Amino acid sequence: MNPAQKDAIRVYHYPLSPFCRKLRLVLAEKKIDFELREERYWERRSEFTIVNPAGTVPMMKMGNSFLSDSQAICEFVEDEFPIPMLIPNDKQRAYEARRLVFWFDDKFNREVTSRLVFERMLRRIQGKGPPDASRVSSALRLLRMHMKYLHYLLDSRRWIAGERMTMADFAAAAHLSCLDYLNDVNWEYSSTIKDWYSTLKSRPAFRPLLSDYIPGVRPPPHYSDLDF
Amino acid sequence: MNPAQKDAIRVYHYPLSPFCRKLRLVLAEKKIDFELREERYWERRSEFTIVNPAGTVPMMKMGNSFLSDSQAICEFVEDEFPIPMLIPNDKQRAYEARRLVFWFDDKFNREVTSRLVFERMLRRIQGKGPPDASRVSSALRLLRMHMKYLHYLLDSRRWIAGERMTMADFAAAAHLSCLDYLNDVNWEYSSTIKDWYSTLKSRPAFRPLLSDYIPGVRPPPHYSDLDF
Repeated sequence: MNPAQKDAIRVYHYPLSPFCRKLRLVLAEKKIDFELREERYWERRSEFTIVNPAGTVPMMKMGNSFLSDSQAICEFVEDEFPIPMLIPNDKQRAYEARRLVFWFDDKFNREVTSRLVFERMLRRIQGKGPPDASRVSSALRLLRMHMKYLHYLLDSRRWIAGERMTMADFAAAAHLSCLDYLNDVNWEYSSTIKDWYSTLKSRPAFRPLLSDYIPGVRPPPHYSDLDF
Repeated sequence: MNPAQKDAIRVYHYPLSPFCRKLRLVLAEKKIDFELREERYWERRSEFTIVNPAGTVPMMKMGNSFLSDSQAICEFVEDEFPIPMLIPNDKQRAYEARRLVFWFDDKFNREVTSRLVFERMLRRIQGKGPPDASRVSSALRLLRMHMKYLHYLLDSRRWIAGERMTMADFAAAAHLSCLDYLNDVNWEYSSTIKDWYSTLKSRPAFRPLLSDYIPGVRPPPHYSDLDF
């Protein structure tokens, strides 16, 4: 347990939510103990929505407080448990880390993650029929453009937002790990991206994500393999 | 000019973008001088996208840096020009301010602002045909639910996120001001909301927004009236 941790923490999550994965990675990297509880948020369970009117995951319970919105929570966690620092002290570097967190959580999610997770998994679980092939292929096309950008970033930097690992690396890896579970990432496209992801995947914080399992959706064998 | 301001600042914006309005309000509240330049971001002008691969507004030029993503920029502005403080020092209060910034910039925008601004204005400017009446009415229905939540918040607090004015007030007011330009806000619904908005609207920082004008879309007379 982190020395700053006074209250028990519980995270309500759904396995293939990139936002939940980002928070789980950030907490684990800071060595914060937390209990994980699965929440099928689309069912809008009343005990859940009453403390979380947005109805989204992750929600974090800490003591008697219920916190929602993944980035508001992550900023709070960064303030409360500053070690290791995941948003740099330097203003320009902090800006760059946040810009890239939002790049993945907003743009990348809208164009790629949310579409593929919905088409390939949530549709079936929520009883909304078979995947829409044209939406899948447009998301995959956009994914290729994002991979190009990610390669461009990592080609000139050690980590996504600069020379130090930041929250942006965890945000990006959270999205890619969801897509990797669905076998949608072409790791052969860039050895630079593969090396960066492989380094993150080997961190102890990543381990629990690799044993996530969604009934009826089996990940490819390389998903949990550290030497993929 | 703010004493901390060394470099000339230029903001590339579009008048009815709530994200641009939030940044303009935050800068003006902090008494930062800046030049405003209109950017029809959907035209993807190459000089614009080369320094801003997300292609979104606002983009802020400061010295030789080009910053994008409204919330990454606002956090940077808060770090660089901390007075007046718009994200509280207290961790819990900072969390609540950020949660509500994201509530408006993510949920409210997705459900209400982006739809109404698109249907009532951008469609025509971008040559995409007449408004889709069913999308307008579902956005208006969701707006009524958000007004209920806003009333609930303001009923027990002086400002949206607590007893002090924060960035969340500017985020919320930025969205509402776009909708007000389109005459979509029913101010008679809650005198609590109306009083809060009226107080914000009277601030010098708000003045420039009230003289925004989009050719062919005239705001209602009360839009710029401080005693609406």
